[in-house]
Amino acid sequence: MPSDTSSIAASPLEGDAGLRGLAARLRHRLDTRTKPLGSLGALETIALRIGLVLGSGTPRFTQPTVVVFAADHGVCAESVSAYPSEVTSQMVENYLRGGAAINVLVRQHGLRLRVIDAGVARELAPSAGLKNLAVARGTRNFRHEAAMTGAQCEQAIRTGRAVAAAAVAEGSNALLLGEMGIGNTASAALLLHRLTGWPLERCVGRGAGLDDVGVDRKRSVLEAASARRKDELGPSELLAEFGGFEIAMLAGAFLEIARCRCIAVIDGFTVSVAALLASRLDDQVLTHCVFSHCSAENAHRALLKYLDVEPVLDLQMRLGEASGAAAAWPLIESAVRLMNEMASFESAGVSSRQVT
Amino acid sequence: MPSDTSSIAASPLEGDAGLRGLAARLRHRLDTRTKPLGSLGALETIALRIGLVLGSGTPRFTQPTVVVFAADHGVCAESVSAYPSEVTSQMVENYLRGGAAINVLVRQHGLRLRVIDAGVARELAPSAGLKNLAVARGTRNFRHEAAMTGAQCEQAIRTGRAVAAAAVAEGSNALLLGEMGIGNTASAALLLHRLTGWPLERCVGRGAGLDDVGVDRKRSVLEAASARRKDELGPSELLAEFGGFEIAMLAGAFLEIARCRCIAVIDGFTVSVAALLASRLDDQVLTHCVFSHCSAENAHRALLKYLDVEPVLDLQMRLGEASGAAAAWPLIESAVRLMNEMASFESAGVSSRQVT
Repeated sequence: MPSDTSSIAASPLEGDAGLRGLAARLRHRLDTRTKPLGSLGALETIALRIGLVLGSGTPRFTQPTVVVFAADHGVCAESVSAYPSEVTSQMVENYLRGGAAINVLVRQHGLRLRVIDAGVARELAPSAGLKNLAVARGTRNFRHEAAMTGAQCEQAIRTGRAVAAAAVAEGSNALLLGEMGIGNTASAALLLHRLTGWPLERCVGRGAGLDDVGVDRKRSVLEAASARRKDELGPSELLAEFGGFEIAMLAGAFLEIARCRCIAVIDGFTVSVAALLASRLDDQVLTHCVFSHCSAENAHRALLKYLDVEPVLDLQMRLGEASGAAAAWPLIESAVRLMNEMASFESAGVSSRQVT
Repeated sequence: MPSDTSSIAASPLEGDAGLRGLAARLRHRLDTRTKPLGSLGALETIALRIGLVLGSGTPRFTQPTVVVFAADHGVCAESVSAYPSEVTSQMVENYLRGGAAINVLVRQHGLRLRVIDAGVARELAPSAGLKNLAVARGTRNFRHEAAMTGAQCEQAIRTGRAVAAAAVAEGSNALLLGEMGIGNTASAALLLHRLTGWPLERCVGRGAGLDDVGVDRKRSVLEAASARRKDELGPSELLAEFGGFEIAMLAGAFLEIARCRCIAVIDGFTVSVAALLASRLDDQVLTHCVFSHCSAENAHRALLKYLDVEPVLDLQMRLGEASGAAAAWPLIESAVRLMNEMASFESAGVSSRQVT
């Protein structure tokens, strides 16, 4: 495992000789719009990134699609979440009826929504809005055994790739990725611990709302789980050992998005850990990501800093289900529209001369 | 002038006995939606605030309107801005042709736009999109004399009130307030200095892009201007002495918005200073404000902290013209929609039982 952040922070697109011309054109376009130089702040950085990824001086989003991967976690038997496992399937049904936060945001912003059963414990009734791609009815309890077999892990990654590829085939060039899975911040915290070498204490948080006693219990469970496999494990082995089906599918989706040169909008802590893991499989992954927000989950701020990325929002949200990605979406779209649609100093007859 | 922040940070609405019932209903509604308690973070605080201001348990925005007040500043003769004064009128013409950042955002979000000539130096050609309410063709140079007469200041405040009242009469219950005026961060910095007692150095910034030498010059000019009137001045006197016509109209608009129990969405540094000044004339003003963003202008973060408010965005924007307010608008709307439209645990059949 790389122990420094340089390979992660690197931005291969900007370094690519073939893209240097495009980067210069995008920068010139931004600098000649009718505004003080750099005055759109982070929106300029986002616009530049999107132009480079989509390979266009005037990039446009097509069919932006929210994908929520849902799955259950065997480790919930150890009481690592404030809510019972049954809430995962109940919330999926809530998405299908349109009553959840993500539904409100999807309606507000005209986004498409795909809900994927990646491995929910209770089999859900067939529904037009749901894709049943469950690898199994929940992972095994990784406190005592591997969460999934190597074959299951490969299947989940492959399925995540296929879900992303299908959205791209339907015309989407931007995927907003989210998750639902009671217990999945426990899995993500342990993956983060093993991927970065940070102490578990730094990686563990309250998830959906644990109190201090609950957080202590969660950390103890993760310590015991990690101790089962003290040997050095690669990213895929870690996923199989301590991951979840939704996390593995997210990792697969990131790999496919990078291959297709599309944009991935990252939601919160668990999705960020999946992106980190995928970046260890393909160093092009992070270049294609826009990080939508810094959540209130304990380790998220540190992880974003480690990845050397600035989130769009910082509103202490901690809901998951792609709600942060969807809330930030209009700003990401604004970044692109401002670059494309604003007049230049020349065309608008505005003086760009600075007083000296 | 009050020297502590307690009167400013107070939130009269929440303290109002008649509103305590509404506050409890809003809190209950938020807490019973299908999400972990508090997991929408700052969006919950915003939703609560808007419900209280609009006096409804299910508040809805009607005809949200962007108002940009534009004016010129005599103090520009002292080279306090990176751009020449003529840019003010050129940018107003850019707004009228639809080429500026604010036009892009207004189109994206379906907002209405009102451009007000509060006192631009060059008389602009009549246009359907422009209201000519100029008090005079720019202020006088406050380095050497009062920026405006007391009568002009009163006229500007009254005009700002009338502009807000007209928008409300047309059905708007949310105004997004912005400004355009080369040199107006100099005026705002001096007003902030006198309103708070902070050293000028803390209040002065780069505006549209001054270099270090320019910032030093700006501070020297403001020091000399302030020294002309060492006596204690009230808020209106300060406005007349060191203000601008757009700043005075903004102050008037805030007073009217508070009277009408509507929402004011505050843009950047200059608008925030106008809100601070208006709050010294009516302590109900700040309760009606949502602060859209923390700009890159030097003193803005300190001012927001002083006002004890959390901005929605923090993206190093520094463009003015209500661009920050308009960029943040979808999130403010999301806050309200999430509270109104999400299903409850009970209606969705989702377990709200926490594991203990």
